[in-house]
Amino acid sequence: MEMLSSNQYDLVTNLMSLTVAAMGAAALFFFLSRSQVAPKLRPALTISGVVVAIACYHYFRIYESFTAAYMFADGAYQPTGKPFNDAYRYADWLLTVPLLVIELVAVLALAKPMARSLSVRLALAALLMIALGYPGEVASDTTVRWAFWGAAMVPWVYIMYVLYGQFGEAIQRQPASVRSLVSNARLLVLVTWAFYPVAYLGPELGLAGAQAETFVQVGYTIADITAKVGLGIYIYFIARGKTEAEGYDLTSGSDSGAGSDEQLRAAA
Amino acid sequence: MEMLSSNQYDLVTNLMSLTVAAMGAAALFFFLSRSQVAPKLRPALTISGVVVAIACYHYFRIYESFTAAYMFADGAYQPTGKPFNDAYRYADWLLTVPLLVIELVAVLALAKPMARSLSVRLALAALLMIALGYPGEVASDTTVRWAFWGAAMVPWVYIMYVLYGQFGEAIQRQPASVRSLVSNARLLVLVTWAFYPVAYLGPELGLAGAQAETFVQVGYTIADITAKVGLGIYIYFIARGKTEAEGYDLTSGSDSGAGSDEQLRAAA
Repeated sequence: MEMLSSNQYDLVTNLMSLTVAAMGAAALFFFLSRSQVAPKLRPALTISGVVVAIACYHYFRIYESFTAAYMFADGAYQPTGKPFNDAYRYADWLLTVPLLVIELVAVLALAKPMARSLSVRLALAALLMIALGYPGEVASDTTVRWAFWGAAMVPWVYIMYVLYGQFGEAIQRQPASVRSLVSNARLLVLVTWAFYPVAYLGPELGLAGAQAETFVQVGYTIADITAKVGLGIYIYFIARGKTEAEGYDLTSGSDSGAGSDEQLRAAA
Repeated sequence: MEMLSSNQYDLVTNLMSLTVAAMGAAALFFFLSRSQVAPKLRPALTISGVVVAIACYHYFRIYESFTAAYMFADGAYQPTGKPFNDAYRYADWLLTVPLLVIELVAVLALAKPMARSLSVRLALAALLMIALGYPGEVASDTTVRWAFWGAAMVPWVYIMYVLYGQFGEAIQRQPASVRSLVSNARLLVLVTWAFYPVAYLGPELGLAGAQAETFVQVGYTIADITAKVGLGIYIYFIARGKTEAEGYDLTSGSDSGAGSDEQLRAAA
């Protein structure tokens, strides 16, 4: 751990605390917005909410661990000797990254065999990607770090291959009004997920010291907010757009019960 | 940090604790009241609840930070040396101020292009306003403080310009029974939001010492309750009034069951 200036420490810890609030707020919003969309699209919002709820918990832990790793002395923040547990990030990703691809597939509401095949393949690749990244992250040997980075990039590339291949074809069968929203959501995954393998290589790229530590913590945090809250907001608007395009009547139904005739016709 | 008298310390900390309760209570109320209004107005209540839930979290952090910054000794509250983290306020505003303008637009239930244009412009201006205020707040140089104050006032003026321009025209197309409520909600935004730039200038206006510190903390806290809980209560009454004016039948729909004939006619 490096000594941090007051400004660096404040930036990192305030952003971590803001993230606890942002993730928790997003969870409330996604859960409560379920009744604003057609029943078949609700699982996508449920999963979006679960993802940010998991991240809310982990950012609380990350904040606690980071603040315990430093103490204020001589006008700056000195390491206390208690290590910051960065593994909370991997624990979070191990749970949330597979769920992120599942929520993206869920909002398409595809035919069941296609939905299952896409979800299973993307989620397993996401799980493998995180699991392969971790041994490299904790290794100090540069060769080992590069080896695991390369191994984790294989599922990363596979995920993008599927998102721009089979998933892309499925987008064409979505209502016209939401197609560009889905494409943008996919682009958000491509761009935000690209940040992680770059940040991982920080030490190899010569990033070291207090500034690098600050940059990596701020970068991961902003990437997590964008990848989780940002994607969830896309899912929300896609689900709302599809609900409207399919003529589902929100004034009846919502959480249970038989729909009106109109609604049943629209859902059929 | 200044030494505070028992009365000053008690006033500030008891008010901060009261605010945790008020924000949390308001969140519960707004969330549970969603079923009392027509479906298209529910997002406005959801966002109102999310705003006060975020503030509830931050006031808990603010309370913890403030009480850790002081210790009782020699009949008064002496600074412990641990700085009070006022940045929690900015973290809160960064998330909640854009959402406050979005909830105000959401309750009008305007046509989609107009709603999107108003929401995006007002939320971005709100975000910019807070982001520009922070560097000035933490600066000690008076010129820098004035420069950022001036810069942050540009989006402030823009927000009021839009609220009294395009937003004002939209008010005229609301049901007659809620028009004055919407105008009052807008006035509440104008008046409460005017407090923040004045409190910011405290040091420039010669406010210093324990009394000024107490005044600023009490002022921000009361302004936050009014701007968030107060606005949310307006949103609630506007949404209820519109639900009634549009003849939406609450006895069916909402949480269960098929819609009544009346409701289907109203929704058509």
